[in-house]
Amino acid sequence: MRVVVTGGCGFIGRRLALKLLEQGALPNPSGGMDEIESLVLFDIGEPTPPIPPDPRLSIVTGDICSDVDIGALIGPSVDVVYHFAAVVSSGAEADFDLGMRVNFDGARTVLEACRKLETGPRFIFSSSVAAYGGDMPSVIEDGTAMTPQTSYGSQKAMCELLVNDYTRKGFVDGRTLRLPTVVVRPGKPNKAASTWASSIIREPLQGQEAVCPVAADQAMWCLSPRRVVDAFIRAVGLSGETIGANRAIAIPGTTHTVREMLDALASVAGDSVVARVRWEPDADIQAIVSGWPTHFNPVRGAALGFSHDSGMVEIIEAFIEDELGGSFIS
Amino acid sequence: MRVVVTGGCGFIGRRLALKLLEQGALPNPSGGMDEIESLVLFDIGEPTPPIPPDPRLSIVTGDICSDVDIGALIGPSVDVVYHFAAVVSSGAEADFDLGMRVNFDGARTVLEACRKLETGPRFIFSSSVAAYGGDMPSVIEDGTAMTPQTSYGSQKAMCELLVNDYTRKGFVDGRTLRLPTVVVRPGKPNKAASTWASSIIREPLQGQEAVCPVAADQAMWCLSPRRVVDAFIRAVGLSGETIGANRAIAIPGTTHTVREMLDALASVAGDSVVARVRWEPDADIQAIVSGWPTHFNPVRGAALGFSHDSGMVEIIEAFIEDELGGSFIS
Repeated sequence: MRVVVTGGCGFIGRRLALKLLEQGALPNPSGGMDEIESLVLFDIGEPTPPIPPDPRLSIVTGDICSDVDIGALIGPSVDVVYHFAAVVSSGAEADFDLGMRVNFDGARTVLEACRKLETGPRFIFSSSVAAYGGDMPSVIEDGTAMTPQTSYGSQKAMCELLVNDYTRKGFVDGRTLRLPTVVVRPGKPNKAASTWASSIIREPLQGQEAVCPVAADQAMWCLSPRRVVDAFIRAVGLSGETIGANRAIAIPGTTHTVREMLDALASVAGDSVVARVRWEPDADIQAIVSGWPTHFNPVRGAALGFSHDSGMVEIIEAFIEDELGGSFIS
Repeated sequence: MRVVVTGGCGFIGRRLALKLLEQGALPNPSGGMDEIESLVLFDIGEPTPPIPPDPRLSIVTGDICSDVDIGALIGPSVDVVYHFAAVVSSGAEADFDLGMRVNFDGARTVLEACRKLETGPRFIFSSSVAAYGGDMPSVIEDGTAMTPQTSYGSQKAMCELLVNDYTRKGFVDGRTLRLPTVVVRPGKPNKAASTWASSIIREPLQGQEAVCPVAADQAMWCLSPRRVVDAFIRAVGLSGETIGANRAIAIPGTTHTVREMLDALASVAGDSVVARVRWEPDADIQAIVSGWPTHFNPVRGAALGFSHDSGMVEIIEAFIEDELGGSFIS
């Protein structure tokens, strides 16, 4: 089978690509596995760090909104398209037009290219808890209305509707994964209001100070990158009938307060590591983060076999194994 | 104040225009009334029947997706834009691209033109119960997720999200009215699966036979054209703070079975009128209509003062008064 990943050089795209090359196949709805003959990663730039060469792998750079670029990318033999290309939340908020262009028009361009194939390829879309916000119930159920409070969340929610309608029309065989906050992200702190959730684990384990701008009882709905990648693989193997008409699936995660995150860090790495976290309350960041949903009841996602981490200890241990080569600075 | 109505020559646009010209003013959030200096109706064609000439009224024909047409329409002094222009449900289902172009891109073009003014005009959008369908709770609450099962419903739901985000960004001061099925529509039966709901009242009152293709216990969530127009006027006078961050408001209606509709028709017009309804069960239409939501609990809409008809008798009497000149054929 032939697989395309837009945003394939980003954080999740890159990890998924490495995993696909490693396992060499994707599940199909009949319960078997389909061998991957080709894997194309599409992005605005090359992956950093580079992905080791592989005869099945090619990397294509271009514009996600260009009919020409995307038409060339989504050729007649494409079976599975992962659509991850997106401007992040803070970027879409700072530049509304850029967010609409990349996050909404880009998804529409890829959906249209898939539609032109007339083969109904599987289309796997990445959505987000940013689809929720504002006035919400204390627990988000599968049937809770999306009430995004950012342009990023609005664009993701609109795309969810588009994926469902393209699927209903038979243009694609869509499945949208509405992901928890991905923790622990590798790399460096960024401008995202959620950056501390990865930072307070990632930096201390590497001997660096980290800043926590929110209260110890602030909770966060979390999923590890490892489980996210597993979910994107699992999504391909489900039949449309099993998923149902609503192709948007809230993916199970786990809720942890900052205190719980740091207690887990202490149990994995010791108090000296936790001592590298500096508390610097920031009212602006606290206000943003307080508006995010923290508790979910993803009944459908669980029934469809999507699994969450056992807790923060597993999340931290996976990070040490996957990103730090198995060791940390105590 | 200056008012623009897109789709202004359609069924609801035309009625709203007549009412605005009659009352000469629109409410403002301070509790007062603002005099209407100009009312521009934009549509693909002239109104039928024509609207009597009025110095405040102008009619402009053009393409709802044309930046040029819409840029010229939404001039710097526009205070209120009603956006009704749309391809109906069956049309958007038959021609997906046309539906996307008119119902989604058209709304986006008008929103963008409003944004360019940098004055944040009030933007009143017409949404629909078609935003719901498929797996639904037995009663739709304000916080129930939108699960459209048609392209029309998907496009309306996407626009609801867009109006909320444009409002949050300060580009417009949006308010979306999610309307019940409008009963009794004037005119002739059309290809809509809901056409019988108006037909079984409208035709018998004019001495003609009507066909009812659904079961007597089939229910429908209804609102009269008169109440719909009142709702669109009321929406302009609410402050954004009163409405809240979610500018989409489910408008209260009343639920009636076919049996209740015909009992009301009998009480208003007599059994001989009801006898003109011929029962011709149609499994295809029944299947479509059975998938529509019938019971709602629109708490926010009621709290914001939107009112429903007292029942089918009021709906029928309003139709006779407004569309049949006060009399019917018994």
